[in-house]
Amino acid sequence: MRLPFGSFCILHTLNSHRRTTRVQRRGLSGAGMRLVQFCRHGDEGKIRVGVELGEGLGVVDVNAFDPSAPSTMRELLELGDDGLEYARRAEASGQFVLERAHVQLLSPVLAPEKVVCVGMNYQDHCLEQNAPIPKEPIIFSKFPSAITGPYDDIILPSESQEVDWEVEMAFVIGRRGKHIKEEDALSYVAGYTVANDVSARDWQMKKNGKQWLLGKTFDSFCPLGPALVTRDAVEDPHNLNIRCLVNGDTVQSSNTTQMIFKTAALVAWVSKFVTLTPGDVFLTGTPPGVGVFKNPPVFLKRGDVVECQIEQLGSIVNKVV
Amino acid sequence: MRLPFGSFCILHTLNSHRRTTRVQRRGLSGAGMRLVQFCRHGDEGKIRVGVELGEGLGVVDVNAFDPSAPSTMRELLELGDDGLEYARRAEASGQFVLERAHVQLLSPVLAPEKVVCVGMNYQDHCLEQNAPIPKEPIIFSKFPSAITGPYDDIILPSESQEVDWEVEMAFVIGRRGKHIKEEDALSYVAGYTVANDVSARDWQMKKNGKQWLLGKTFDSFCPLGPALVTRDAVEDPHNLNIRCLVNGDTVQSSNTTQMIFKTAALVAWVSKFVTLTPGDVFLTGTPPGVGVFKNPPVFLKRGDVVECQIEQLGSIVNKVV
Repeated sequence: MRLPFGSFCILHTLNSHRRTTRVQRRGLSGAGMRLVQFCRHGDEGKIRVGVELGEGLGVVDVNAFDPSAPSTMRELLELGDDGLEYARRAEASGQFVLERAHVQLLSPVLAPEKVVCVGMNYQDHCLEQNAPIPKEPIIFSKFPSAITGPYDDIILPSESQEVDWEVEMAFVIGRRGKHIKEEDALSYVAGYTVANDVSARDWQMKKNGKQWLLGKTFDSFCPLGPALVTRDAVEDPHNLNIRCLVNGDTVQSSNTTQMIFKTAALVAWVSKFVTLTPGDVFLTGTPPGVGVFKNPPVFLKRGDVVECQIEQLGSIVNKVV
Repeated sequence: MRLPFGSFCILHTLNSHRRTTRVQRRGLSGAGMRLVQFCRHGDEGKIRVGVELGEGLGVVDVNAFDPSAPSTMRELLELGDDGLEYARRAEASGQFVLERAHVQLLSPVLAPEKVVCVGMNYQDHCLEQNAPIPKEPIIFSKFPSAITGPYDDIILPSESQEVDWEVEMAFVIGRRGKHIKEEDALSYVAGYTVANDVSARDWQMKKNGKQWLLGKTFDSFCPLGPALVTRDAVEDPHNLNIRCLVNGDTVQSSNTTQMIFKTAALVAWVSKFVTLTPGDVFLTGTPPGVGVFKNPPVFLKRGDVVECQIEQLGSIVNKVV
């Protein structure tokens, strides 16, 4: 059996200098990494895997350090701990660090098999709309084509007049599994990141036979990133401040402790239906403060800038065009 | 610009002997092919692309003929007409024909970016449930993990007591596109195949906040095949008899002429929302005769055999286990 992603203890006990340095640099208590996908400027279209040395800091080019390393996050995750070892070795080398001015961060995962989304999963978001607390998770999806980078534009479609924001914590699957027990579920999670579950409310709520898919899956409706923060780098993913700002004004502000079905429960639940596979992305639901429930409702317009922030994970900033 | 898939006229005028032979063998009026994915027995797990010389007949091993050819249908389709040319050359060689006893057919597409499904898209199916004819297509989805082979088992999940059949014509996208005009839409279609949109009615209709996804996407709930019949091989995809048999009894019997939104309209509609990409699979809706609307309702049980047939395209046969 493969080691779960958290089992790096021996390596890091033996390598305490590096560990200390990393903790100081990041303020994280674990031995985790901020895994990213990026293009080098002048080399657009060529996806590379990297390790971000802290939010907004330099990026270690894993593929430059070891040309035999996978060049997409999904392939890296498919290798399990061997995949993460490529990233760890590259980071430890202290070499091949690119300055941020020379890289364009992409979504940390592209082309997953699934983008699994959860509706009505914050207690305070249910209160906001006078809806009962769900007894079981409500699962819907986006197509992977909706994913866009952490600083890329959200494209306002002419087909909708009611495009709304939803900051969400996302997690990414690191191991293949079906019928996963809740007590084992976290070992199937590679790490966490930040998502905006952009939603065309007219299409979600009033059209398409009330199936949410179309309203949720326009191209660019899933900004994701900036990094896949490995599980061992996040002390408690269900005690993180989570915020959304539109043009600098805070519109959503809550804490992931408000989540009704937490990471392990969601992995266990969805794996009753489908086989999960490395790279699968889960969006875990949004807190209150979305535009559609404001009085009067507020929707995104061209030129708006949406920033989604989660403590320890980072921020994504997307302009509406 | 790439040639659309139909533009093989010159080649085939020059090569009339081969064309005649192929037409005689298949009874098809076009110069099309039955593209398949398969494993050789004893070599399971290794996907290969082939050309089926007629339903149930031998399979030309495209990768044996030319080891540089893509070994998955999605990669082959991504090459556009160049991809199809690999298959045409292999078929024309008259060599590398495997007997059916030596191959296991897989779904003609695996791991598409999208499985796009259409609800309520047969006039007679709307009548069956006293539902109005939709004015716009109703779009939902399955995860690609639901796809299974044309003769593989449908796995009855313990989570559902109401698993139902739905024979559907499927089509597969052959060219990348967004905002595709209806008059251009068919040039984005690589070909047609047969699907069973297996549906857990309890999860589709009563649970999960009435979002259909979970009821539609259990593992094995999308048998697909046997072949991707290229567009030029199908005279009129909207005048094909379509049937579903359970244990040999006809339960669904209609014609694709009953479809409300036809292939071109569906391509145009969905491409308003999302970029379509080669390999994307569309399931175009089911005719009347599903189990849930029988009186009393009838659902699948272990040991049942479901056969979905569409004229010119073929049959898929799946045992329920």
